[in-house]
Amino acid sequence: MTGRQTSSSGPADPRFFNRSGPFEAQVLADAAEASLLPPREGALSATGYTGIAPLQVAGPQEVSFLDNRRYAPLLEETKAGLVIVAPAFADKVPPHCAALVSSKPYLAWSRVARLFHPKKPVKPGIHPSACIDATAKVDATCEIGPFVVVEAGAEIGAGCIIGSHAVVGQGVQIGQDCRIGNHVTVSHAVLGERVIILPGARIGQDGFGFAVGPNGFESVPQLGRVVLEHDVEIGANTTIDRGSVNDTVIGAGSRLDNLVQIGHNARLGRCCIVVSQAGISGSTVLEDFVTVAAQAGLIGHIRIGAKARIGAQCGVMSDVESGADVIGSPAMPFREFFRNVAVLRKLAKKASGSAEGGSGKQ
Amino acid sequence: MTGRQTSSSGPADPRFFNRSGPFEAQVLADAAEASLLPPREGALSATGYTGIAPLQVAGPQEVSFLDNRRYAPLLEETKAGLVIVAPAFADKVPPHCAALVSSKPYLAWSRVARLFHPKKPVKPGIHPSACIDATAKVDATCEIGPFVVVEAGAEIGAGCIIGSHAVVGQGVQIGQDCRIGNHVTVSHAVLGERVIILPGARIGQDGFGFAVGPNGFESVPQLGRVVLEHDVEIGANTTIDRGSVNDTVIGAGSRLDNLVQIGHNARLGRCCIVVSQAGISGSTVLEDFVTVAAQAGLIGHIRIGAKARIGAQCGVMSDVESGADVIGSPAMPFREFFRNVAVLRKLAKKASGSAEGGSGKQ
Amino acid sequence: MTGRQTSSSGPADPRFFNRSGPFEAQVLADAAEASLLPPREGALSATGYTGIAPLQVAGPQEVSFLDNRRYAPLLEETKAGLVIVAPAFADKVPPHCAALVSSKPYLAWSRVARLFHPKKPVKPGIHPSACIDATAKVDATCEIGPFVVVEAGAEIGAGCIIGSHAVVGQGVQIGQDCRIGNHVTVSHAVLGERVIILPGARIGQDGFGFAVGPNGFESVPQLGRVVLEHDVEIGANTTIDRGSVNDTVIGAGSRLDNLVQIGHNARLGRCCIVVSQAGISGSTVLEDFVTVAAQAGLIGHIRIGAKARIGAQCGVMSDVESGADVIGSPAMPFREFFRNVAVLRKLAKKASGSAEGGSGKQ
Repeated sequence: MTGRQTSSSGPADPRFFNRSGPFEAQVLADAAEASLLPPREGALSATGYTGIAPLQVAGPQEVSFLDNRRYAPLLEETKAGLVIVAPAFADKVPPHCAALVSSKPYLAWSRVARLFHPKKPVKPGIHPSACIDATAKVDATCEIGPFVVVEAGAEIGAGCIIGSHAVVGQGVQIGQDCRIGNHVTVSHAVLGERVIILPGARIGQDGFGFAVGPNGFESVPQLGRVVLEHDVEIGANTTIDRGSVNDTVIGAGSRLDNLVQIGHNARLGRCCIVVSQAGISGSTVLEDFVTVAAQAGLIGHIRIGAKARIGAQCGVMSDVESGADVIGSPAMPFREFFRNVAVLRKLAKKASGSAEGGSGKQ
Repeated sequence: MTGRQTSSSGPADPRFFNRSGPFEAQVLADAAEASLLPPREGALSATGYTGIAPLQVAGPQEVSFLDNRRYAPLLEETKAGLVIVAPAFADKVPPHCAALVSSKPYLAWSRVARLFHPKKPVKPGIHPSACIDATAKVDATCEIGPFVVVEAGAEIGAGCIIGSHAVVGQGVQIGQDCRIGNHVTVSHAVLGERVIILPGARIGQDGFGFAVGPNGFESVPQLGRVVLEHDVEIGANTTIDRGSVNDTVIGAGSRLDNLVQIGHNARLGRCCIVVSQAGISGSTVLEDFVTVAAQAGLIGHIRIGAKARIGAQCGVMSDVESGADVIGSPAMPFREFFRNVAVLRKLAKKASGSAEGGSGKQ
Repeated sequence: MTGRQTSSSGPADPRFFNRSGPFEAQVLADAAEASLLPPREGALSATGYTGIAPLQVAGPQEVSFLDNRRYAPLLEETKAGLVIVAPAFADKVPPHCAALVSSKPYLAWSRVARLFHPKKPVKPGIHPSACIDATAKVDATCEIGPFVVVEAGAEIGAGCIIGSHAVVGQGVQIGQDCRIGNHVTVSHAVLGERVIILPGARIGQDGFGFAVGPNGFESVPQLGRVVLEHDVEIGANTTIDRGSVNDTVIGAGSRLDNLVQIGHNARLGRCCIVVSQAGISGSTVLEDFVTVAAQAGLIGHIRIGAKARIGAQCGVMSDVESGADVIGSPAMPFREFFRNVAVLRKLAKKASGSAEGGSGKQ
């Protein structure tokens, strides 16, 4: 592969991203709601800052940031002209370098980066290849991509972007300012505002429900819906089955990563986080602010209390209390899990030591 | 989000589901093959029952059911006019309420729900945007959606629905009355009758086979097929690779949930169940009626005996006997797994207790 | 299902695969770079060999192979005319049967199979339904399927096949001889040569990055790219998020199976293998020749040394040394993991034995 392709020339390749600026330091500080510390040696850039870059590659006209303690050594060597840091790292900023100090440096970074690279604006219009049913209502301010299908009775609010090949099923309601990715399927669903669905997610298909009949399994009608409340984000190729009798609900502000599975009738509260490849079985309830880490699995018909955190690969077979941290399969408190691991290692080492020592007492 | 959207007005939102009825109690009893018990106080509805609803929200003209013992308290408080229950719960039905008593209440419920909400009928016709090869044979009774591709030599039997954007590859055979979801890809495959594939599933692509050559990996030709026998159901975004030399086979009546992976040359028997995010590696054989729970993983080239049950997140590295229940990673009998968990907890508690007690003997 | 469908008439159903031949034994030996041993009884086929088949079903004019020690008993009973084997099995070949002996029998098999069943050639041309932006550059030798979308500024090199419904996003670069499967989404990405992407994979969407703002989560702009170097293969429905600041990179020759998740900024070296349903979190680095088995999960911001092997369902929470073999959750050396399993089983059996024996000392 050619050098052009593998060598990273910094973020925001202009083939893919819009670019704005330059911006003066104070403008960036205001956007970030951060305190501006001028460089201890030299001065702020008179012509402003032109873009963002990682600590390793940023130059004197660029803004960088420290988001993870483990990369702190890079801070001292950076050639960036301006860095965003937490207060604890303010005195580690090199002398030539200005700082934006924020108690929420990641949020500050996010806003500065967005200033330099604003989102693609909506381009209202329906691509001529799209297939929109005559009874569907698509707001005139929407951008509808090629080969989109919008079925009978569906309604799409103002300012939405519907990516190419997406299918908006019969009767589906989509609130304003949503982003429906390429190849997404949405059926039997009601979406709030500002909902984002990444490519290939499947929303609203039949849940996994069947009864044993005289000639094999018989599908049980799945008569509920999927409700995605305001500001929900759904990852690529994630699947959310519609409810069987009740609805499957993803609460406002919740974020699901890629390849997540949500079973029928599950209900997630507000601002839950579900990381990639995790699965939540049918009728399970997550209260607000629950975090489910990657590849964790939750059995059906249980309740996870508010702010509980489910660790990666955790297997949850029963209710979890509010605020609890669990991990392991079956799930147990973090502390207990790591104690068990340590104790077993010690016991195994001892057993193996005596075995190797030839005690013969096995 | 507005109240209209989040408040569940009961199942079967008319924007998404057909509706039939009302039905008299005896009609429902016949459909359910259940015994009708009139209410102990009052009478059956003279005008029949209008729909279904969960126990909590059902009214006097609606039918509800108790499907899970843990929801039994809701039965005693329900305002439903008619409930479907197992014999063990018949005397828990409130006095104002009629009952349909069935030894298979879930099956009975399924049939009653289907009566009120019949499936969307097939609307024969090929959407003008579909791209059908001149050599493909599509029965005139099929419903072919927008942007469907049917390649050369493919054959689609009577009464099928092919959802928008689905791709039916060269030479693929699809039996009658199948439902192929939106965005499904099917290639190198032979499907029986009444096969259902949910949106985004990938059937028949190259298996993961390669040999180490002098300049890196070399793909091994994957020359088998995928065979989905009668009445198979495949979940959303599930992937089934075609065989390398033999076929990958999913036996009649088997049901796979969402995001399942089936490796090349795997063979599932009749009426197997594979729950979401489980994976079955290449050349592994499942005999009939095997259940694989969510997120379980089976190594390649092993055999799982009939009626065996593989627990959630189980890691199966060797053959499993017929009828066995296994769980854990590596897999072991259920009883052994939970005994191990209990013993380790006890040992760890003891070790930690003595450590905290300052025995110093660590 | 009818017998025609389930009965496997050997591999390479002509409805799905091209066929070439017959080939004389020496031609096959040359392709396989293997030594030809004539049969001990009888002679090589004068008219050559017509195809390939598994040991159980191959006939006297067909070629078979032994790829897995566990199938060795089938070798002695095969009716194949020619078999490909490793040197260790050469004297197990039945007397009527010629052999191609190779120290890399799987590679030899691969090449013989490819000789009989050559790949579908590229048919240059753009399907009239495809939607190609006027500013995109598509080489005239490419085959572009129905309903493909190629956005502004994208470039597709010579000899590529872009499957139906694939979306090649704005500015994406695709090197020559790539194969982009049906329904694939590629955005914000740069692909080398001979890259293969199976159906439904999602390349280049937003990573899972957000900061906690005053009104809930705020998305952090994801300003990196995805780089797929030469000869990379990506499985069906796999998801690879683009970088946030740096690029997400899949090194040359690496192969990812189906339903794999790669988080933003992850970097895989050359010839890594990631098996189905495994997940690699953001900013984690894999050096060259790392193998990650099925359903394994790697936390973010760690480094896996060259040639390390991560076992199935392994949960990796910290760096792994080059060449190490780890398994378990949390990850530990293979040997330690299985020792722990054995010791715990023994302890549990003892504890349970004494409990059942009624010692009363619990």
